[in-house]
Amino acid sequence: MSAVRVFAPATVANVACGFDTLGFALDAPGDIVEAVRQGPPGVRITTITGDGGRLPLEAAANTAGVAVLALLAALDDRGTGIELALHKQMPLGSGLGSSAASSVAAAVAANEVLGRPFDRAALLPFVMQAEKIACGAAHADNVAPALLGGFVLVRSYEPLDTVRLPFPDDLHAAVVHPHIELLTADARNVLRKTIRLDQAIEQWSNLAGLIAGLTLGDHALIGRSLKDTLIEPVRSMLIPGFDAAKQAALDAGALGCSISGSGPSIFALTRGRADAESAADAMVRALETYQLGSDRFVSRINPHGAVVL
Amino acid sequence: MSAVRVFAPATVANVACGFDTLGFALDAPGDIVEAVRQGPPGVRITTITGDGGRLPLEAAANTAGVAVLALLAALDDRGTGIELALHKQMPLGSGLGSSAASSVAAAVAANEVLGRPFDRAALLPFVMQAEKIACGAAHADNVAPALLGGFVLVRSYEPLDTVRLPFPDDLHAAVVHPHIELLTADARNVLRKTIRLDQAIEQWSNLAGLIAGLTLGDHALIGRSLKDTLIEPVRSMLIPGFDAAKQAALDAGALGCSISGSGPSIFALTRGRADAESAADAMVRALETYQLGSDRFVSRINPHGAVVL
Repeated sequence: MSAVRVFAPATVANVACGFDTLGFALDAPGDIVEAVRQGPPGVRITTITGDGGRLPLEAAANTAGVAVLALLAALDDRGTGIELALHKQMPLGSGLGSSAASSVAAAVAANEVLGRPFDRAALLPFVMQAEKIACGAAHADNVAPALLGGFVLVRSYEPLDTVRLPFPDDLHAAVVHPHIELLTADARNVLRKTIRLDQAIEQWSNLAGLIAGLTLGDHALIGRSLKDTLIEPVRSMLIPGFDAAKQAALDAGALGCSISGSGPSIFALTRGRADAESAADAMVRALETYQLGSDRFVSRINPHGAVVL
Repeated sequence: MSAVRVFAPATVANVACGFDTLGFALDAPGDIVEAVRQGPPGVRITTITGDGGRLPLEAAANTAGVAVLALLAALDDRGTGIELALHKQMPLGSGLGSSAASSVAAAVAANEVLGRPFDRAALLPFVMQAEKIACGAAHADNVAPALLGGFVLVRSYEPLDTVRLPFPDDLHAAVVHPHIELLTADARNVLRKTIRLDQAIEQWSNLAGLIAGLTLGDHALIGRSLKDTLIEPVRSMLIPGFDAAKQAALDAGALGCSISGSGPSIFALTRGRADAESAADAMVRALETYQLGSDRFVSRINPHGAVVL
């Protein structure tokens, strides 16, 4: 059997005011998974590269494996054997949806080798099961944009209801990943379980503005709305140099800037690539003054999500 | 001097999931204010009809008067005399923005008799001052749509940032006003000052869906998103028959149904006028089984707000 290779992209979840409900896809970085139909029934991970030996080869404990196991279970397929090779090409624990990129690439690749029994959106429940292994909850705000591309709103989980949002063609993202590692669980534990109603109103007013700005192609409104007055003030304390990097991005012309997912990566949205390059450079320099090295990524908003290579 | 007559419409604030940030305007009911430039400096309310004698004639204590006083103060005009006649044509304490309709009609009328020194949107701060008299806080979610028409998002108060949202042409509203009276202050006091983060996430995910549905003209998404899982469960306990009326509206084909403002009025959004008529009839009948009389209103979404007659 011939192998299928799939690339799935990094994603920025939360997007400032859209905590646990909004995410978008980048062009790069991302992960590649090769899938081939061979061997005895079940899912085997034959190779993992780029993870520094940190990810488990056991399929049921690895997000890529879990996604494919869920896909086979949905087909009630107990006879097929699928072997996966996982090539991590992005940092783990970065807040850029590393586990989502792996599970989405694996699910799309396995779906291809099986003759595409599911359309793209129908793979979402399988990769959500993988997220449950990775971060304890079946969140969709990374996996949905990694799978479908663009900006995706997760309006509801029961029933699952995702909405692909239009966005301006020239919207770009600057992302820096400071060389520190946060675990999603830690970043989640710093959050309060209750909030004041007036804080919630401020947050959802900004989210409403962001959704309107994206769908109407209003860059200034996107910028005014890219505010997280609820989560960022708490989580940013875990990221040395965050305030300086954010200010540097805004000074360099970014529309807005906040924490990517649960951090430590920081993203900025810009109008056009040139501003994104400037914002990324400015954030890297700001973090250097805190003795923090970082990786930088500049990308348009990836409109299609995972791709078969 | 010749008088200027202005009609300003009733409005539905909150719109299910958009608590304190979203509102839309109806074609009817509404209030009419006549303004004329005459007499000694200051603002006088010469007549109020339709209020059953409940509203104060003193300008500084009446929302119509306060709005015009604020307008004159912004012009630093201490020489002009303005007389107002206020014709209430909608119920007080109904949750339909009764005070907003009066203050908006008065501000627009006064602005006309003064030769229109302010454009329409610039009147917003004056009518917000009037809201502070009426309900203790300078909310804009009734006055903004009454003034500007359509759906208006109040993204931010400091600085003030309102966003007019597109909406489908065929969107209609069915509104019933049960013959009970709630005071906004009471309806506000039943709300918790703190909420769980997961409740907030559910609410803002629906609001994001509603904004996307309105701007994209996606009726089904509007319907799925018209959910208030935070405020409605508490406030609806103050409205006998609410659950039955809501179910009746949905059974009659409404996209969604919730409390208008702080209640007791109930609104439903529908695709087309025929469904709005059916939903209004169904809600009236449902309330009758609770021995509650009600007024019914059916309206398209009013696209222009207050009008000079």
